[in-house]
Order: sequence, then structure tokens, then C-alpha cells
Amino acid sequence: MRFTTEQRLDDGVLEREFALGEIPGILWTPASASAPVPLTLLGHPPLGLRKMYPRLVARARRAAADGFAAAAIELPGSGDRPRWAAAEQARADLRRALEADEPVSDEIVDSLILPLVGRAVPETQAALDALLSLPEIGGPVGYSGGVISVGIRLAVVEPRIVAAGLFAGSFVPRAMFEEARQVTIPLHVLLQWDDEGNDRQAALDLFDAFGSTEKTLHANMGGHTGVPQFAGEDAAGFFARHLR
Amino acid sequence: MRFTTEQRLDDGVLEREFALGEIPGILWTPASASAPVPLTLLGHPPLGLRKMYPRLVARARRAAADGFAAAAIELPGSGDRPRWAAAEQARADLRRALEADEPVSDEIVDSLILPLVGRAVPETQAALDALLSLPEIGGPVGYSGGVISVGIRLAVVEPRIVAAGLFAGSFVPRAMFEEARQVTIPLHVLLQWDDEGNDRQAALDLFDAFGSTEKTLHANMGGHTGVPQFAGEDAAGFFARHLR
Repeated sequence: MRFTTEQRLDDGVLEREFALGEIPGILWTPASASAPVPLTLLGHPPLGLRKMYPRLVARARRAAADGFAAAAIELPGSGDRPRWAAAEQARADLRRALEADEPVSDEIVDSLILPLVGRAVPETQAALDALLSLPEIGGPVGYSGGVISVGIRLAVVEPRIVAAGLFAGSFVPRAMFEEARQVTIPLHVLLQWDDEGNDRQAALDLFDAFGSTEKTLHANMGGHTGVPQFAGEDAAGFFARHLR
Repeated sequence: MRFTTEQRLDDGVLEREFALGEIPGILWTPASASAPVPLTLLGHPPLGLRKMYPRLVARARRAAADGFAAAAIELPGSGDRPRWAAAEQARADLRRALEADEPVSDEIVDSLILPLVGRAVPETQAALDALLSLPEIGGPVGYSGGVISVGIRLAVVEPRIVAAGLFAGSFVPRAMFEEARQVTIPLHVLLQWDDEGNDRQAALDLFDAFGSTEKTLHANMGGHTGVPQFAGEDAAGFFARHLR
């Protein structure tokens, strides 16, 4: 891991861009910390780190205020990273189905999500190796937001992640419901009740499927991007309980 | 309203029992307050104030820590208040249905809940008149917990209640779903995902029915009495946002 930029934000948070091989990322660490700090991995939709930056930095500042570092890496096929043909095709198929007001088939969902999960999860684990080798970061690690299927797979395969805050706001392949049963870490699941791009019943079924004995569903009014401010406060409380 | 006892709890909260005509109640006020404080009405199941006291005083202490007064009154037909024959009959019918593992009919639910709502709501409003006339209590008023149908009716008919935290953990007459559509105040709804005495789908339908533009569902694992500690913290955050 190679740091490429470094700046102090107005609240003293240290923001550093890094490159992990070909993967760009950003690390935020609290203004002052006397001991190695816990880490939250900030998931995000595949729209590019640059586009997501305002929302990511807000979440990172909130994490830093609780004494946690936060990091995000560019998803495969997003931002300046090379596209791959199958993913572009799946996105085009999805757009066509949505514009024609047709149901989104299992095939489209699978080809959209499963390859993304298959690539993003080992990359996130590699980033975790690098981040946890820094003297200022100690763990434990939480995963927050982003493509929920990425979060599910990470929760199953990555034992260093001790708690996950998931956003039930993207298509979920049927195969992921089976993986959800294998999740046992504490979960905090956000659902927007009238999410235009998300099936409410599927989200409730997914919540039901998770194997965790501590899991909480927070459903709020509004569409996909209408998550209320106070929902962020509740999620921060969840991570404070599990990472401190 | 006539105060009958007065004591300081170890955290400085002032606890006073009162009688409002034939109705007993308890008022808790914060240790020190320089101005009239907001009020939370503590709803509770019809098991008697004395039996509910440990849980009520814990909720009252939490409210006082946020600078709010809290009050609870004995429900009609509970504690030392006179039973009425129809309610006793409805409870016996419910017990019989549950013991025989039969579905609880609409008739049983209606005869159990609707008369209770019809009596408890005006009594709560009378208590509100008396409590808000005290110089130390200013409002606004929140309603929290208890029989959810009582909370629904209060939210519809009582304009002094500005926010309600409801527990989707009791039978709801069909007629209350229509009333739920008329609720417009901010709502914080708790659901125990595996509540043994409560139908999950009915609770989700009820949440969907509420007319409020700000409504949040917090679903947690476990049975009726297994509401986790952190759920109380989130509910306290809801009231802090709306009563301060």
C-alpha cells in the first residue's frame, strides 16, 4: 500500500489517498489517537469513489468522532478502474428492463451482482491486510453500507469483521439468501420503506434469513436516497457498541 | 390531582404517586430543572402499575436523564381498579383460544382491546390536563409504549402529543388499521421479530398503514419481553429529537 496524498480536514481528521496495486482508496484517521484504533470499512455503490466522496467523507468524519478510522476502496469496474464487458452488459440489460418497466430477471441480477461480489470481496480483504498492518490501526473491524451482497459475503468469509451495518437497497441474487443464513455477526440493517429500486418483501425476507442472533432492522420512510440523518446516528451507535 | 406520596430516588429523580379521582398514577420529574420540562406518558400493558413498577421506573429515570418528566396511570380494570365483566370475559376467551392453540378471532381481539381503548384514552387525556397544569411541566408531550391501540387512538385524538414510540406487541383490532392511517405525528415503532403473542405480518402491515411521513420501524430479534437494551437507547434518541 502506497500513500499518494495527505491532508488534514478542518476537524483535524487525517485524509490519505492510497493505491493498493491498481486499486485506489482513501483512509481517514481520527485527529488524535493514543492507541491503535478500530476500523470501519465504508461500502458504497459502484458509482466511483470520486462521485461518492462527499457522502464517504461525511461518514468517515462521523466514525472519526467516535474514535474509529475509516477506509474505502474503488470497486472493480468503477471510477478509473477498467470496465469489464460482462458487467457493462449486465448494467445495460438492467437499464433496459427498468426503462421498459419489466421485472428484473434473476439472470440480470446474478450477472450484475455475483461477479462484483466475487471480485470486490478478495480486494477488500487485501485492503484489510494492508490497513491492519499500519501501526495506527488496530481493529476490530466493522463493515458499513454499500452493495449488500458484498457485505453478506464479507460477513461470512472474513473473520476480522465483527459487526456489519448493511443497506437493504440493492438487488440480491437468490444464492445470497443462502449465504445470509451463514452470517452470525451482529447486524444493523437499514431499509428504505419505499425504495424505488428495491423490493420491500425481498428485503424483509433477507433480514429474516440472516443467521445472526443480534440483528436489527431499521426501516425509514422515503426512497433509496432518502435515508434520514437520524438513521446515521443510530448506525453510529451500533458501531460504537461493537467496535469499542 | 392529589399527590399521595413523595420520595427522592438515588439519582435525584422526584417520584410522586398521585390520585386523579379513582385513578392512581405516578409522576417522575428530573432532579433539577430551571424551566418547565417536556413530558413522556409511559404506556404499559394492563398488568397493574405495581407489577410494572420496575420497568416503568427504569424508563422514567432514562427520561429524566434527558430532562423530561414521565408519568404513568393505572389502566381501567388493572391493579386495584374495579374489573368489568366484559373485559374479564374477553381475557378468559383469549386464554382459552391460546391454550387450545386456536387462532384468536377478531371478536376476541375487538372485545379485549376496543373497550380498553375507549376507556383508557379519555382517562389519559384527563391526566394530561392535570399534569400540564403543574408549574414544573411544560410540554411538549410524547407517548411511549403500552397497548399499541391506545397509542394509536391517542395519536389521532390528542393534539398535545407530538411524537409516539409504539410497541407492536399486542393484538390490534381491524378497526385500528383505519385509525392508523389518520396518524400524522412522528412515530418510532418497535417490533420483536419472534414475538410469540404477536403476528409479524400484521405488525408490518400496521407500520405500513400509519399516515405519518416520519415513521421508523426498529425490529429486533427475540420474543415479546426480549427487547434489547440498545433499543431503549434508540427510542430515547427519538424522544430527545422531538421533545427538546
